[in-house]
Amino acid sequence: MARFAFYGAKWWNHQAGYAALAAGTACGVAIRPSKMTAADGRPFDERSAANLRPYHLSSWQEERIGLVKERTVNKFLNPIAIAWPDFNFLNPDELVQGHIILNDSKQASRPKELANGCVRANACKEIWWNPSEVRAAIVTCGGLCPGLNSIIREITNCLWHQYGVRTVLGMQAGYNGCKDPDSFPPTQLTVDNVRDIHMKGGSILKAGRGGMDDPEKILDQLQKQGVNMLFTVGGDGTQAAANLLFQAAKKRNMPLSIVGVPKSIDNDIVFFDKTFGFDSAVAAASEVIRNGWVEATSCSKGVGIVKLMGRDAGFVAMHAALASTIVDLVMIPEVDVELEEVMGHVDRTLERKDFMVIAVAEGAGQKFVATGKKDSTGHTVYGDIGTYLKDAVNSHLKSKGGRSFYIDPSYIIRSVTIRPNDHIYCSRLARDAVHTAMRGYTGVCVGPIHNIIVVMPSNLIASRKKRVGLHSSSWQSCVQSCNMPKSLSGLN
Amino acid sequence: MARFAFYGAKWWNHQAGYAALAAGTACGVAIRPSKMTAADGRPFDERSAANLRPYHLSSWQEERIGLVKERTVNKFLNPIAIAWPDFNFLNPDELVQGHIILNDSKQASRPKELANGCVRANACKEIWWNPSEVRAAIVTCGGLCPGLNSIIREITNCLWHQYGVRTVLGMQAGYNGCKDPDSFPPTQLTVDNVRDIHMKGGSILKAGRGGMDDPEKILDQLQKQGVNMLFTVGGDGTQAAANLLFQAAKKRNMPLSIVGVPKSIDNDIVFFDKTFGFDSAVAAASEVIRNGWVEATSCSKGVGIVKLMGRDAGFVAMHAALASTIVDLVMIPEVDVELEEVMGHVDRTLERKDFMVIAVAEGAGQKFVATGKKDSTGHTVYGDIGTYLKDAVNSHLKSKGGRSFYIDPSYIIRSVTIRPNDHIYCSRLARDAVHTAMRGYTGVCVGPIHNIIVVMPSNLIASRKKRVGLHSSSWQSCVQSCNMPKSLSGLN
Amino acid sequence: MARFAFYGAKWWNHQAGYAALAAGTACGVAIRPSKMTAADGRPFDERSAANLRPYHLSSWQEERIGLVKERTVNKFLNPIAIAWPDFNFLNPDELVQGHIILNDSKQASRPKELANGCVRANACKEIWWNPSEVRAAIVTCGGLCPGLNSIIREITNCLWHQYGVRTVLGMQAGYNGCKDPDSFPPTQLTVDNVRDIHMKGGSILKAGRGGMDDPEKILDQLQKQGVNMLFTVGGDGTQAAANLLFQAAKKRNMPLSIVGVPKSIDNDIVFFDKTFGFDSAVAAASEVIRNGWVEATSCSKGVGIVKLMGRDAGFVAMHAALASTIVDLVMIPEVDVELEEVMGHVDRTLERKDFMVIAVAEGAGQKFVATGKKDSTGHTVYGDIGTYLKDAVNSHLKSKGGRSFYIDPSYIIRSVTIRPNDHIYCSRLARDAVHTAMRGYTGVCVGPIHNIIVVMPSNLIASRKKRVGLHSSSWQSCVQSCNMPKSLSGLN
Amino acid sequence: MARFAFYGAKWWNHQAGYAALAAGTACGVAIRPSKMTAADGRPFDERSAANLRPYHLSSWQEERIGLVKERTVNKFLNPIAIAWPDFNFLNPDELVQGHIILNDSKQASRPKELANGCVRANACKEIWWNPSEVRAAIVTCGGLCPGLNSIIREITNCLWHQYGVRTVLGMQAGYNGCKDPDSFPPTQLTVDNVRDIHMKGGSILKAGRGGMDDPEKILDQLQKQGVNMLFTVGGDGTQAAANLLFQAAKKRNMPLSIVGVPKSIDNDIVFFDKTFGFDSAVAAASEVIRNGWVEATSCSKGVGIVKLMGRDAGFVAMHAALASTIVDLVMIPEVDVELEEVMGHVDRTLERKDFMVIAVAEGAGQKFVATGKKDSTGHTVYGDIGTYLKDAVNSHLKSKGGRSFYIDPSYIIRSVTIRPNDHIYCSRLARDAVHTAMRGYTGVCVGPIHNIIVVMPSNLIASRKKRVGLHSSSWQSCVQSCNMPKSLSGLN
Repeated sequence: MARFAFYGAKWWNHQAGYAALAAGTACGVAIRPSKMTAADGRPFDERSAANLRPYHLSSWQEERIGLVKERTVNKFLNPIAIAWPDFNFLNPDELVQGHIILNDSKQASRPKELANGCVRANACKEIWWNPSEVRAAIVTCGGLCPGLNSIIREITNCLWHQYGVRTVLGMQAGYNGCKDPDSFPPTQLTVDNVRDIHMKGGSILKAGRGGMDDPEKILDQLQKQGVNMLFTVGGDGTQAAANLLFQAAKKRNMPLSIVGVPKSIDNDIVFFDKTFGFDSAVAAASEVIRNGWVEATSCSKGVGIVKLMGRDAGFVAMHAALASTIVDLVMIPEVDVELEEVMGHVDRTLERKDFMVIAVAEGAGQKFVATGKKDSTGHTVYGDIGTYLKDAVNSHLKSKGGRSFYIDPSYIIRSVTIRPNDHIYCSRLARDAVHTAMRGYTGVCVGPIHNIIVVMPSNLIASRKKRVGLHSSSWQSCVQSCNMPKSLSGLN
Repeated sequence: MARFAFYGAKWWNHQAGYAALAAGTACGVAIRPSKMTAADGRPFDERSAANLRPYHLSSWQEERIGLVKERTVNKFLNPIAIAWPDFNFLNPDELVQGHIILNDSKQASRPKELANGCVRANACKEIWWNPSEVRAAIVTCGGLCPGLNSIIREITNCLWHQYGVRTVLGMQAGYNGCKDPDSFPPTQLTVDNVRDIHMKGGSILKAGRGGMDDPEKILDQLQKQGVNMLFTVGGDGTQAAANLLFQAAKKRNMPLSIVGVPKSIDNDIVFFDKTFGFDSAVAAASEVIRNGWVEATSCSKGVGIVKLMGRDAGFVAMHAALASTIVDLVMIPEVDVELEEVMGHVDRTLERKDFMVIAVAEGAGQKFVATGKKDSTGHTVYGDIGTYLKDAVNSHLKSKGGRSFYIDPSYIIRSVTIRPNDHIYCSRLARDAVHTAMRGYTGVCVGPIHNIIVVMPSNLIASRKKRVGLHSSSWQSCVQSCNMPKSLSGLN
Repeated sequence: MARFAFYGAKWWNHQAGYAALAAGTACGVAIRPSKMTAADGRPFDERSAANLRPYHLSSWQEERIGLVKERTVNKFLNPIAIAWPDFNFLNPDELVQGHIILNDSKQASRPKELANGCVRANACKEIWWNPSEVRAAIVTCGGLCPGLNSIIREITNCLWHQYGVRTVLGMQAGYNGCKDPDSFPPTQLTVDNVRDIHMKGGSILKAGRGGMDDPEKILDQLQKQGVNMLFTVGGDGTQAAANLLFQAAKKRNMPLSIVGVPKSIDNDIVFFDKTFGFDSAVAAASEVIRNGWVEATSCSKGVGIVKLMGRDAGFVAMHAALASTIVDLVMIPEVDVELEEVMGHVDRTLERKDFMVIAVAEGAGQKFVATGKKDSTGHTVYGDIGTYLKDAVNSHLKSKGGRSFYIDPSYIIRSVTIRPNDHIYCSRLARDAVHTAMRGYTGVCVGPIHNIIVVMPSNLIASRKKRVGLHSSSWQSCVQSCNMPKSLSGLN
Repeated sequence: MARFAFYGAKWWNHQAGYAALAAGTACGVAIRPSKMTAADGRPFDERSAANLRPYHLSSWQEERIGLVKERTVNKFLNPIAIAWPDFNFLNPDELVQGHIILNDSKQASRPKELANGCVRANACKEIWWNPSEVRAAIVTCGGLCPGLNSIIREITNCLWHQYGVRTVLGMQAGYNGCKDPDSFPPTQLTVDNVRDIHMKGGSILKAGRGGMDDPEKILDQLQKQGVNMLFTVGGDGTQAAANLLFQAAKKRNMPLSIVGVPKSIDNDIVFFDKTFGFDSAVAAASEVIRNGWVEATSCSKGVGIVKLMGRDAGFVAMHAALASTIVDLVMIPEVDVELEEVMGHVDRTLERKDFMVIAVAEGAGQKFVATGKKDSTGHTVYGDIGTYLKDAVNSHLKSKGGRSFYIDPSYIIRSVTIRPNDHIYCSRLARDAVHTAMRGYTGVCVGPIHNIIVVMPSNLIASRKKRVGLHSSSWQSCVQSCNMPKSLSGLN
């Protein structure tokens, strides 16, 4: 079982049980190991997402592995329990199973880190922090994404109304504002000044890159301001930086709950079902696809081409195609295609319908447009596949009578107002981030698996990126609903 | 364990194992029964959602219980497998676990029918039907719901493109068109005439009530038209009727795959995560709430009141409140409130903010407005809680200077165009309905649990309705985000 | 020529010339009177819209009639002229002709008050007020209308940026805030706090009715606050009250520029082309009509019925029908119809298309639903024609198989955000209101004729209401595009 | 009076009268010439817009000048008059005055062609064509513009319902379909197949460029198909081609009513108030400006830059700025600016507000990016001012800490669905185009002056393009509302 090699010998101490699980059983139901604790009494491997003891303020200085016994170590009664005696609280050891399909045809591709499940996020009755002593801060990093203001608003509201916290600092310009509050003075957030902010796109905290280079300086500044709870909203880089901050705080034993809300408009955060803002971006993208479709259908042999976000993962392009079902070709970074195959599909589609729509992720087809450059932060500078494709289609069609209509919506996609269902999702993440911090966790992120919000170590989240699975039901459906040929599907 | 009484003695043959599961274990991980087959070799109880043998054309005449051995009985190779050798197909016995939380604080409320999991829907390599012999029909019943056209379109496209089916009849006016095709002649659906229909609300098949009273006549007509695959899109009544049709077909051994796509704009379909169209309805509702909020905030002591759908379940009102987070009181059928408590909350909210927004489900507060009448189909005629509340608030505020602004959007909510993410969902349901029918199932519905589409007997779906759980995380969050008092929350 | 009787003998001193004008001439070009001054040297009749001398602070105490010689009496140089030497300013006596069609087929219906044209509003080089001494106030009265915040914002911006005024008071709750600033303390408006307000519907000044009963008290309060410029945004009642305020100020010789921006979501302001917010309301209404159309087209013999604003004038219903062109019957207060004619049209339309859409103004068909009541302000309480029509259609169709779908969007229409083109219009009105006040006018309103903003005495504006002309090109087009029968058109 | 030189000696035979008109009079009312007929009995100069005799089928072969005596020469009774005896018809010599402002501060800039007014378009009682013999065709040329489908629909509906015409051909791909119907077979338009088309953007007739090169061939084809009424929807090039077609038809005395509906998303059609689709484009553009504003306000020293349509005229950029009032700089082709002035304004604006939004028309600042190239049709290839400006701003700000966010919405603007008020406008144009053709005019266009639709010779429309007047009230307002400095305003 080569796929386990990566996890090393410690990964799983019940090979037999796991093998049974992986193989399925004759009766159609997997046999689960009767005990999931390790031989040495540690319930999980240290790489398990459920191994949260190193990420709780009660036990972060210890070398132990396992779940946190919050009922024992958390000394404060949640003020919600006082106000609402009949409220239902989570069991603090409530675990959402990671692998929930038996006889799973894609067992091999399920992440091992989730094999033991994940601790559910949400309010518990016993909490670590005395709410009256909490001073919180929120930082939003990187580029814009729909929902930032929703998250800022709901973190503030939950802290204020449910826990009575009155100090909520809005750090400006990302980590820059954490590191250098003199240049970027923080805003005092209140229920009044966040009341309407979710009705606008963008971030009232002025998103910003950089500033992550000096964790010690950031901790000094937070300490100076008395901040003991920090919410970091940002991508994998932001959460990696949050993890370094967590490590530094641990080293100086500075009690600070750092809870992240992972952000990626490309939806390439690993483990979690979906990122916030993604649905809104897809909705905006599918409207632009509609524009391309209008152009294509209003011209003989018209080819609408829309470039969408997606440096390394094609989720936006794929979902926008599924959301509009008027796309005939989706090009994503995960699939390597040849230009002549593209042109063959163009010809056949125009022959059949007289128009065509192509959605192309910005990171697709880089072999055609490689720049060979890196930017100042070391990221590869991508070539512009959109204009390349436009030119290629135009020159291909020149003699045949058709033409392309190219749209690059760029910032239009990410600066939209959050959509209603996405706002609900942002609110859930925000509230559960607060509850998780109140329960004493740190160095963790919150996000959903199987549509239930869980807590996970930030270093797991920052460890890799999600990509579109070519055998996922989404991509296979996309390929089918677009009537794409095998040669452009990656399924060959 | 009183809650098991309902299921009778046969329900569960591993009381001990189940009790352990329910109680959780000291090590934080539930012990699952090592074998889930029954003593007599039947893997599941007959009430289990996974007990699909009675709902497969290979075995529906037998008295057996269990999963279907599709690989053995399904004789045709899926044409997708021919076109796409590298396509990933489901294992036909792939099971989605029903209960996926260990140490679950709400174990008692999880539906027992899901305890053994549910068979996953999607394409399998071996299918029952010879696609070249399939003649399909689609019927949409009951009132409008966003997404009907999406489902009609994607069922047609999947049948046409993936399985090569060329006969897809669109029955008109619900079951009326099935029973009396002379009065309501069906439409021939093709990829061309469904191409743009998802861009409009409503149903091109003209939704209609009634016509379900004579299953034999419907079968006669379907037989006459050579239809052997029927997709029923409609609410619990529609699926109950589909079940009767299935029973009648079984009795006359007429091979007919009946697959339902449950529809309810109230989202009160049991077992499944969410109904199609619900997100779009909530989005529309939250825009109307915005209108009420504009009125309320533009007047001294203004109270916006918005009546929303929800006869017996308050999901639309609750989610619209969560999606807008500008609502101060949500009244749903599941919570019994006193008028003086409502007015107390009005007073306190106006005192605090000078404006207020109330979302009220049509079925809430019926004790104030009971009509005592039944309509022709035997349903209780509900009184108009919206105008009652409007008048009550106005008369309460008369001497204090405020007033209400009442909005009843009625059909505005349900006639909207499908939203992008909801269209993706409709497409998934549609495609999986087709795959499920092709695999030979009948008398079943498709829908998601834990965000994975599964197959379930229609009689289970029609057996009861979902209601808002007062201890659900959604309702508790709603109560908190609205700052509602205990007395109006049902949590007391 | 009986229609002149109303205006009395003084109205027109060139009967012969006017008769020629009315009749047209053989050569196709009207002969205009060679001199438009009156026999006694007064250029206009006192009822002429261009007779503005009584409404200028330089001459309001005199008994003279005519245009104002602003270049002579206005002593201050417009600060815009200092900042922008190359700016084009209006001639202060620039007159927009009222009647601009020669050989006019509807000459008889053109308002006589406009025969001499209207003074154009906009910036002039010489102004009356020393901007550094101006203290301005804005009041918004009556119900909501899209664009109130746009007008508040642009008045503030123009005063601030173009004239350097730093005191702009936002009176709360309509005239109540003018009369009783202690109970309703005014807001200080600045460019910063109005920056984003046009992105929301409603009014940040909290629209309110009443408070107009005591002009002297209002003047006392304004005097106390040093206000010398008052912008009144409201309907004909508001402008009538503004006229009384103007009369009272004139009597006590209190220099106060009162400039109104007429508001009516029904678009029934006389003389002016169109009210602000009307286009936005029509756009919202046409979306609701789309909802009704979706319902009607998704049901056999479906009749969508949408009730729209319009107490005494059917402009909203008419324009919403023209804007959607999917309506088959428009019922407006101006046209008296019989129910059996309506039902005949319903039958014929269903016969032809199998669906139908009706737009009905709230004030239409009052003879069917008369309440016989007056409200506290003496206005007739209208019966609910919408539900009446719904019930009538349902009972008419009961035996025939169809049914109605009724939508009453109520506040949804008026609480929408201003549409882009409407915001431009609001901005023009706002700026020209400021320029007009700065030029020293008072007791006047601004609004467009032939799409050019002009100044007109408020008492003219308040003198009557506009109604839909049955021979207007709009109504005739509406009747044709709906395929309405003669009997329902009023054209018989 | 040098400005009259262009028109030659024949232009105006009442210099004295005109001089009086231009100068205004002491009493504030202009004296109009008592007779407007020419010395030789011709009422107008041949360049007058009202000189329509050469453009009526009764008189197009004559050398006369003047209005058409339709009542004498038009022999058929309008079928509307039969169906609607009480309908109000225009007088056929109804003239809309071109210059309607007395004491006009901008008299010199008013177009001389309108001095004698324009013949009003709309239905007349006597028509030229026997409707039962009419065979009509519609052609849409050039790029997309919102409203094409509205116009196609309403021309079809008016011909069908009001005049009973049953042959309405939809020519495909612009003039190509007229010239070569074998390659581009026309569509038969009916009330049924145009019913819903206005709910989508684009053109169902597939807009296309070219095909205008051979008028004789087009006439041959039209003759072959029996077409005697042709509606040409397109820009100034299209109308110039329509004029050549008209000349050719006149030469061969082929009775053909050619009526144009001028189209330009840039709104640069001369004489007419506004083009159809322009409001919708501006609305779409102002949403994109909102995106740029969200980006700019969510970043420290953020500069949003949005490129908008406008090759030679900046109307879209100007109106989008006025419609959003969140723009700080508008760059249009009509204003020549220096880059250092732009950067100075950037610095001052960032200093004041910390963010900034720039709207730039594609044709602005071409001196910075001139390509020196012409395309195949001889048009100058414009350089990309958008990316130039983005780079310039970025490099300017590099050392200061800010950055730009650049959006080029391209086809997004023009492929949107028509907005409600714009659809009303399209419908008016469409109906009046039909009425004008029925009255026997040819070689003419329809469009509004002072918001009334009139008829004008196509060669006048094609004679030049409209540009933004720097002293127009729109541009001056734009400059003020953006707080632009003099150096960037063109007003210096």
